[in-house]
Amino acid sequence: MTPITAEEFQELARHGVPYVGQLGCVVERFAAGDVLVRLPYSDLLQRPGGTICGPALMALADITLYGLVMSLLGRVELAVTTSLTVHFLTRPAPQDVLAEGRILKLGRRLAVGEVLMRSDGSPEPICQVTGTYAIPPDPGLK
Amino acid sequence: MTPITAEEFQELARHGVPYVGQLGCVVERFAAGDVLVRLPYSDLLQRPGGTICGPALMALADITLYGLVMSLLGRVELAVTTSLTVHFLTRPAPQDVLAEGRILKLGRRLAVGEVLMRSDGSPEPICQVTGTYAIPPDPGLK
Amino acid sequence: MTPITAEEFQELARHGVPYVGQLGCVVERFAAGDVLVRLPYSDLLQRPGGTICGPALMALADITLYGLVMSLLGRVELAVTTSLTVHFLTRPAPQDVLAEGRILKLGRRLAVGEVLMRSDGSPEPICQVTGTYAIPPDPGLK
Amino acid sequence: MTPITAEEFQELARHGVPYVGQLGCVVERFAAGDVLVRLPYSDLLQRPGGTICGPALMALADITLYGLVMSLLGRVELAVTTSLTVHFLTRPAPQDVLAEGRILKLGRRLAVGEVLMRSDGSPEPICQVTGTYAIPPDPGLK
Repeated sequence: MTPITAEEFQELARHGVPYVGQLGCVVERFAAGDVLVRLPYSDLLQRPGGTICGPALMALADITLYGLVMSLLGRVELAVTTSLTVHFLTRPAPQDVLAEGRILKLGRRLAVGEVLMRSDGSPEPICQVTGTYAIPPDPGLK
Repeated sequence: MTPITAEEFQELARHGVPYVGQLGCVVERFAAGDVLVRLPYSDLLQRPGGTICGPALMALADITLYGLVMSLLGRVELAVTTSLTVHFLTRPAPQDVLAEGRILKLGRRLAVGEVLMRSDGSPEPICQVTGTYAIPPDPGLK
Repeated sequence: MTPITAEEFQELARHGVPYVGQLGCVVERFAAGDVLVRLPYSDLLQRPGGTICGPALMALADITLYGLVMSLLGRVELAVTTSLTVHFLTRPAPQDVLAEGRILKLGRRLAVGEVLMRSDGSPEPICQVTGTYAIPPDPGLK
Repeated sequence: MTPITAEEFQELARHGVPYVGQLGCVVERFAAGDVLVRLPYSDLLQRPGGTICGPALMALADITLYGLVMSLLGRVELAVTTSLTVHFLTRPAPQDVLAEGRILKLGRRLAVGEVLMRSDGSPEPICQVTGTYAIPPDPGLK
């Protein structure tokens, strides 16, 4: 496999996909199977009521899970999300959001991960996500 | 209840939440419990491989479900998505996406809806979503 | 592939797995990608309040989706459910439940299907389920 | 609220609903928001290949989440599961299964919980479940 660093993954998260890249996510931890991504608060994320819109949190979940898979398998750009289940738990404050990903299963063909989000400075979970990735048939793993 | 028209809902979809509004969604049908929303293809949606990124489809699902709830209950701006499950079925072509929403349950406290998406001009589903909305306790329904 | 008939699939549903078999499900329709399974009402299914317990509906969903996959791929006994999302919509009446399955995606490695349930004699949906199946790498499909 | 003890909850789990009761689940821990339930291995649970069938794991998840809600809210028998998402991670061994529940959100109207299962004697997760409960409008909470 071709390993990928935190810097390279952040580059990918910011420039690979414009709709996600504009969020300006910061990769704060990128160890194998243990990834932390920060979504900086900005006006772009606002939703009436002074809170953060759901689609921005879903984009953050997707990028965090993608990072989680890459932290374990390297640069598998062809891995694709096949499903995502999102629970919105409480209204996020108008602040940075921290998303922590952990792996539940890493098979040869499927990976399942979980993301838990909280507002910076608060322990309370605001959003919980599980996602499944399909791993390409022959990723050259040794 | 305060009814809402297709035009008013499109206005809300485009200006209420900037991260979603920039998608420029077009409300093509807005009958009670039967909503069709078009996501116009643009460079913003691109993902490597000439396809559309998942977070844009999730934003489209969210707005379609929100429209579905409003088409039935009127302007319940306090209704909030509580969960969303997304299945990505096939890679969308670099084209407009049509999202069709239908209601599965409309209770006093919870609404459940489903969204099926396809590329314009193709019958094949590319993404299927179910979502749950919490309806405010006393929305003044008569 | 080795095709499977409605009778053979019903036999499998009744005797392959005892916890599911005791439900006595009846396969009422078994065309490619279009499956209808009846769960006969019995005391075993009861839940306080004169309704049917959720786990019996989940077992019905699982068997219906399994049938759906076999109706398309033949006897792929190694296909396994990888995920299931269940929405309980309304309390079922103490009556037979009809579960109708349809396929959303049939790929080489993953199949995604949907099941909609209603009480016999009523059009209203009581439970909606989406499920994903992993298809064995080399099922000998021609 | 009317508190409920581990013994009372186990009684409910074993006798309230026959299809679930026959599993003979054992409540091993029952603190507020922290519940551990054991599913004893038996022939009833078997699935070809010497493993445990999915519907038995789903029933275990449902009972664990129900216990979790009661551990926090007392005897709210009218609380109902509104949705459940299950990820089957690896084939369980033919052994007892331990299900550990934790709460993600406890609101006035909705509770969200997570269940992680493993085979007795192994740390590896075999099944992960998130579920949502609707709490009756006026449960008499003080």
